[in-house]
Amino acid sequence: VDLDALEAAARGLLTENAWGYYSSGADDELTLAENVVAWRRVRLRPRVLRDVSVIDTSTSVLGIPVRLPVLVAPSAYQRMAHDDGERATARGAAAAGTVMCAATLATVSLEDVAAAAPDAPRWMQVYVSRDRGVTAEMVRRAAAAGYSALIFTVDLPVLGNRRADERNAFALPAGRLMANFGAAHPSVEGGSALAEHVRTDLDPALTYDDIGWLREVSGLPVLVKGVLRGDDARACVDAGAAGVVVSNHGGRQLDTAVATADVLAEVVDAVAGDVEVLVDGGVRRGTDVVKALALGARAVLVGRPVLWGLAVGGDKGVAEMFEVLRDELARAMALCGVRTVGEISRDLLAR
Amino acid sequence: VDLDALEAAARGLLTENAWGYYSSGADDELTLAENVVAWRRVRLRPRVLRDVSVIDTSTSVLGIPVRLPVLVAPSAYQRMAHDDGERATARGAAAAGTVMCAATLATVSLEDVAAAAPDAPRWMQVYVSRDRGVTAEMVRRAAAAGYSALIFTVDLPVLGNRRADERNAFALPAGRLMANFGAAHPSVEGGSALAEHVRTDLDPALTYDDIGWLREVSGLPVLVKGVLRGDDARACVDAGAAGVVVSNHGGRQLDTAVATADVLAEVVDAVAGDVEVLVDGGVRRGTDVVKALALGARAVLVGRPVLWGLAVGGDKGVAEMFEVLRDELARAMALCGVRTVGEISRDLLAR
Amino acid sequence: VDLDALEAAARGLLTENAWGYYSSGADDELTLAENVVAWRRVRLRPRVLRDVSVIDTSTSVLGIPVRLPVLVAPSAYQRMAHDDGERATARGAAAAGTVMCAATLATVSLEDVAAAAPDAPRWMQVYVSRDRGVTAEMVRRAAAAGYSALIFTVDLPVLGNRRADERNAFALPAGRLMANFGAAHPSVEGGSALAEHVRTDLDPALTYDDIGWLREVSGLPVLVKGVLRGDDARACVDAGAAGVVVSNHGGRQLDTAVATADVLAEVVDAVAGDVEVLVDGGVRRGTDVVKALALGARAVLVGRPVLWGLAVGGDKGVAEMFEVLRDELARAMALCGVRTVGEISRDLLAR
Amino acid sequence: VDLDALEAAARGLLTENAWGYYSSGADDELTLAENVVAWRRVRLRPRVLRDVSVIDTSTSVLGIPVRLPVLVAPSAYQRMAHDDGERATARGAAAAGTVMCAATLATVSLEDVAAAAPDAPRWMQVYVSRDRGVTAEMVRRAAAAGYSALIFTVDLPVLGNRRADERNAFALPAGRLMANFGAAHPSVEGGSALAEHVRTDLDPALTYDDIGWLREVSGLPVLVKGVLRGDDARACVDAGAAGVVVSNHGGRQLDTAVATADVLAEVVDAVAGDVEVLVDGGVRRGTDVVKALALGARAVLVGRPVLWGLAVGGDKGVAEMFEVLRDELARAMALCGVRTVGEISRDLLAR
Repeated sequence: VDLDALEAAARGLLTENAWGYYSSGADDELTLAENVVAWRRVRLRPRVLRDVSVIDTSTSVLGIPVRLPVLVAPSAYQRMAHDDGERATARGAAAAGTVMCAATLATVSLEDVAAAAPDAPRWMQVYVSRDRGVTAEMVRRAAAAGYSALIFTVDLPVLGNRRADERNAFALPAGRLMANFGAAHPSVEGGSALAEHVRTDLDPALTYDDIGWLREVSGLPVLVKGVLRGDDARACVDAGAAGVVVSNHGGRQLDTAVATADVLAEVVDAVAGDVEVLVDGGVRRGTDVVKALALGARAVLVGRPVLWGLAVGGDKGVAEMFEVLRDELARAMALCGVRTVGEISRDLLAR
Repeated sequence: VDLDALEAAARGLLTENAWGYYSSGADDELTLAENVVAWRRVRLRPRVLRDVSVIDTSTSVLGIPVRLPVLVAPSAYQRMAHDDGERATARGAAAAGTVMCAATLATVSLEDVAAAAPDAPRWMQVYVSRDRGVTAEMVRRAAAAGYSALIFTVDLPVLGNRRADERNAFALPAGRLMANFGAAHPSVEGGSALAEHVRTDLDPALTYDDIGWLREVSGLPVLVKGVLRGDDARACVDAGAAGVVVSNHGGRQLDTAVATADVLAEVVDAVAGDVEVLVDGGVRRGTDVVKALALGARAVLVGRPVLWGLAVGGDKGVAEMFEVLRDELARAMALCGVRTVGEISRDLLAR
Repeated sequence: VDLDALEAAARGLLTENAWGYYSSGADDELTLAENVVAWRRVRLRPRVLRDVSVIDTSTSVLGIPVRLPVLVAPSAYQRMAHDDGERATARGAAAAGTVMCAATLATVSLEDVAAAAPDAPRWMQVYVSRDRGVTAEMVRRAAAAGYSALIFTVDLPVLGNRRADERNAFALPAGRLMANFGAAHPSVEGGSALAEHVRTDLDPALTYDDIGWLREVSGLPVLVKGVLRGDDARACVDAGAAGVVVSNHGGRQLDTAVATADVLAEVVDAVAGDVEVLVDGGVRRGTDVVKALALGARAVLVGRPVLWGLAVGGDKGVAEMFEVLRDELARAMALCGVRTVGEISRDLLAR
Repeated sequence: VDLDALEAAARGLLTENAWGYYSSGADDELTLAENVVAWRRVRLRPRVLRDVSVIDTSTSVLGIPVRLPVLVAPSAYQRMAHDDGERATARGAAAAGTVMCAATLATVSLEDVAAAAPDAPRWMQVYVSRDRGVTAEMVRRAAAAGYSALIFTVDLPVLGNRRADERNAFALPAGRLMANFGAAHPSVEGGSALAEHVRTDLDPALTYDDIGWLREVSGLPVLVKGVLRGDDARACVDAGAAGVVVSNHGGRQLDTAVATADVLAEVVDAVAGDVEVLVDGGVRRGTDVVKALALGARAVLVGRPVLWGLAVGGDKGVAEMFEVLRDELARAMALCGVRTVGEISRDLLAR
């Protein structure tokens, strides 16, 4: 009935290797914990005696209509959670009426993800390779397969220190590939196979110019994910970004980085309405969604909760997770005295 | 000897279904906990060397003399706590010299509540039904039965997510009715029967105009309960409210809503003395009462403590609970150097 | 070797009745805990490269030279801790070179306390009785017995709600009397015998005029103990007090009253050097003493630590407790770069 | 793989006497804990889309090139951790490309430390003896043995109250000497042998003039270690110090002294670039190093982590500990969007 229960159920179903990969954060996991706490710390000032007989949770993101302002955050290796992997997630997102983000490091190819829910909106997350040709080809394939935007992840020039993965010598299970490249992970002795992949294949030399490059080679609008500062957000906009995603990669990259709830307002103010601002990290309740929108986000993304739903019930589990969040959001809106997401404003927050 | 002990005793006497219903809050119960903590966090600056040989805890609320500035908060289904239910509460409140608030969802009819303590002051709490005729009839019956004011609850357009009730599939025990309507709850498969009732019967389209409507159909002054903002309080006054009750419904509706102790001063300042301001939520000690009055409340309401007293000792238990609070209040006043509730001022609070 | 260890040792030696009486606070014991924490929370900014080869912890209080700025706080019923009771405390204080405060509710008469350490400085704590003749006689006896000041306790117009004493039905053990009056406590059925004594015998109608009255009948300077506000402290001075003691009665009277460390500066600033300011409550370390003096106190009083020393070793235990505190104070002063108590200033404190 | 794991491994290898000596702090160990927490509390605001393909952690300290801005803090008695003691630490520091600080209370003579890594940079920590001739001789020997600076420790005019050492009756194991003097510790009955040594041999009368004296007798630049205030830092500079080390002696001297992370900026601002500012205390992560440099430190020193590495693996353990910190620092820099230590600025920190 809520995401806590879903998490507990998922934990019982996943291998140590997969659970460790999905749940862990960097170093001492302080930002991982702070992401959740930062939303809870924000206090709501509900309004009363507004007619809330009809609550409308729908909105649009980059012009795409969605039934609720909650999207699928890109996450890798979803066939570790469920045999159908990203296919099921795409179908679940479609059923929920929201946007699927496919990951570069998916275990189902982007074309197969598209085929799983051909009419539903989808975005493609991008890690840029040292070999730019590899990335150019992938984003062109994404455009061809009907992805309508790129999510350009910029907070992973190197991999964060995820102790669980080091301890578990994290590796993809037998038969799971990086499906967008038809390739297995580099094999490593001990340590994390992903860490090795990032070290050898991903490009640590990215700059703001790569926003334009991605737009050009793909013909798609580019959202920049991993921004935690107003000035960086402004620079993204100036470089042609179609939006920014305030994110610290779910606490998995730089530990003690600011919680996203704590910097969202700064980013929103810096961007000044020129592009849409999304946010992820620690969203677990409908009230968290209200707070994110009150701070100025257009929508939020959820990552781990999608994986919990996927692990527990495949596409139906994903759809049900979104249904829970939508119910909670509608209830929170009614209790705050707002009927539409457009009525959610910063004035709902204490201090 | 104090309310903690009373709570522990009550817990041992109640069924899981009843205890879960009375004690639980919404979602993660953060506001439930914060309500109590917010009072405790306020620090007192007592005055010394005032003659406190005579302490007078009496005051008046809406012109009604009371022996202490603590009233019965409306709460539903009191026959789950004790066979005499709301009858006993009315007699206990009368013995304590304070105001009884009967609830719309009482398990004893408002006329029987009135008959239980005919000479004592009583108010009627109102949930407005989708069928306005139902509510109009109820408030006219209340006026006829000698209720002198309405408490119009405005923070329940939908029901909060009370996980205990969902888990327990909360239902009224056999033989317990919504006595004001002579009706049983709608029956539900699993889940909370109350949630179903709210969904189907209560009106989520209330506005400030309903304050005037209630006053008109009943001829009674209307206090608006569930206000957490200065601007809303002002709007209530402008719409003809006779008072406001700062309340988050005991943490049972919108989780992470502000604690009442934290917004009381804002509401008091916004109302600027035009009407009386009451407050509930987390009051457990005489010192809490002093703090509420120091922040500008005319009086406080207590809900769960009444139910604990009721469960433990029927009308005598309720009266004794008030006696404990009155002793604690008198002691706290003496130790603060104030003799009358009128001498309690904001200057007693640190910061 | 430090006061924590002493407390643990004492606990093992005392009856439940005595331990409960000495250790408990009022209500939820929040101020009791906060007193200790408030000192710890203050951060020191030590100075370096001062010649601290000679550290002098001595000072004077009301003109009386003391070896350290730590005095015996008045506490009742010391023969519950050790058969020699207040006699031993007086001898221990004398050995330590500091001032003994005898209590109105002592289990050894003030004359016998004086006789135990005839040459040492001593003050008399005063609870004023409803029968003023009783008090007038006691303070005149004190003057005759060489007490050089009165400590007028003003924060006990009624007794705080000490749950341990109610639970234990606190009573003086057989053979222990209120020795200053040669009287046993009023006997009570259940509940605290002290609570009954306060209710029936002590005067709740004290005012600032009583400062002058006490000075007049005794001929002694009067320190007012139990002040927690600047304006009250000022009023004491204007009424002729020779000093004020910032105190919340060790957290035993008004729960959630401000911690003494948190209001000391306000009182010091209000008094503006016109009289000396003392403080008690939660002092357990030499660094706490440095902080109190840095905030402007002339000296601190310790209550429970004296009783721990007394319980463990009689007069020697008391003297040793002071020796530990003096060693800690000297070390803290050296590490702060100050040689004399006069060099301790507010500049040593962070923020 | 990180310092937590190294600490746990070391703990399993050390005697109670040695572990107690290395790990303990003064009194209630509040500053010991706060040192670590204060770094963690600082939140990072990483920059994105900077080319971080090449990360350079190297810098210089007092003109000495180092591979990372992390140096060996002086610590005593290293042969308690490993038979090779300070020799191994010197070799480990040399392998890591950083500066070794030898301690006055070393268990290997300063000449033998120098001989262990003759080409590597080394500094000599100085406790000044009451017999100034002893110190003059030691610092001249240090100059002769190629030490290029003195670290003048000024926060130990007396020894902090380290309860573990008192409890363990701390003493050097048989065969371990204060090797710089070829002397055993004074023998004591119970209590700490170090406490006795400090009391009898070290000079508590140091002043700012001793900075010049040390420089004169040694011909070496003098860094003053143990400064926690801007005004003291300024005074050190005015007295001819070549640098200051913000330190509270690892929480081992004055408990409740400010955490070093909390006062670093004040000291940096007071010194205003005239000399270099170093800092130690609680640094356990690469992110902590980034924060220290962002606040204006030239470099940090680590004490306990060196001992953990030494205990676990001798010189290789020390080198590996530095390698872990350098990897973490490089990762943190990349994730913050900075390529060189010169690019680390206060703007990376929240608030």
